Amino acid sequence: MLTPFDDTYFMKKALDQAQEAYERDEIPVGAIIVSNNKVIARGHNLTEMLNDVTAHAEMQAITAAANFLGGKYLTNCTLYVTLEPCQMCAGALYWSQIYRVVFAARDEQRGYRVMGGKLHPKTKITEGLLEIEASTLLKKFFIKKRNLN
Amino acid sequence: MLTPFDDTYFMKKALDQAQEAYERDEIPVGAIIVSNNKVIARGHNLTEMLNDVTAHAEMQAITAAANFLGGKYLTNCTLYVTLEPCQMCAGALYWSQIYRVVFAARDEQRGYRVMGGKLHPKTKITEGLLEIEASTLLKKFFIKKRNLN
Repeated sequence: MLTPFDDTYFMKKALDQAQEAYERDEIPVGAIIVSNNKVIARGHNLTEMLNDVTAHAEMQAITAAANFLGGKYLTNCTLYVTLEPCQMCAGALYWSQIYRVVFAARDEQRGYRVMGGKLHPKTKITEGLLEIEASTLLKKFFIKKRNLN
Repeated sequence: MLTPFDDTYFMKKALDQAQEAYERDEIPVGAIIVSNNKVIARGHNLTEMLNDVTAHAEMQAITAAANFLGGKYLTNCTLYVTLEPCQMCAGALYWSQIYRVVFAARDEQRGYRVMGGKLHPKTKITEGLLEIEASTLLKKFFIKKRNLN
């Protein structure tokens, strides 16, 4: 059955962004932001290309979404991201008061939960959606890197 | 005695940035980044003007410093900032592996320590330098805001 606007549909869009990062030789993490069933922002990790630790997928998507909406609060938006946000991105999401965050792979090393960071108390969280697809792409990237060095 | 390159000298430069934010009607927080006794980046809060929760003083300074250095790691740099970083900025500083962070006013509400965030274990931290000057400017801003509303 076609379900064009469910979580899986949108997470696949985030995975498309992660694939773009992979093709640019960046750690493959992708994010999109959805408002009223419409993708209003997308981003993928660009830390290497931009030489900038702040250029995570989520940060770019948050900035782009606020730009689209003309306001900095994302209280009606959902972020779909292929990896659990780090504390920096969790902090940005906290300030944005985003309605909901859906992430795929857990990050046991640098995820915001293990680092001690917090999302906004109003933000709803769903985890593990398409986790295998997201982790497989990350693993493939790190294996490729290891073989090149 | 003239001590042009001590912490107080550089924190005053960060306070100048905070003053610029104040004049633009932004929450007055300013930051500079120093490498080899040279200011290589500056930033002040622009969240209102840019409609962007990520536009904190530190974030802009981190991006500008990496741009100046042509590399994303700030292992030889010191950040001077007029307010204790939030978890987003602490997260960005963590990724940058910055050598040292000096902040003025403590933030008991949204500072990274109360929020549970972490700087990099290698980063040295100094707090409370010119705290009164930094807090006075912040208080002045919030009093002005309250009187306008």
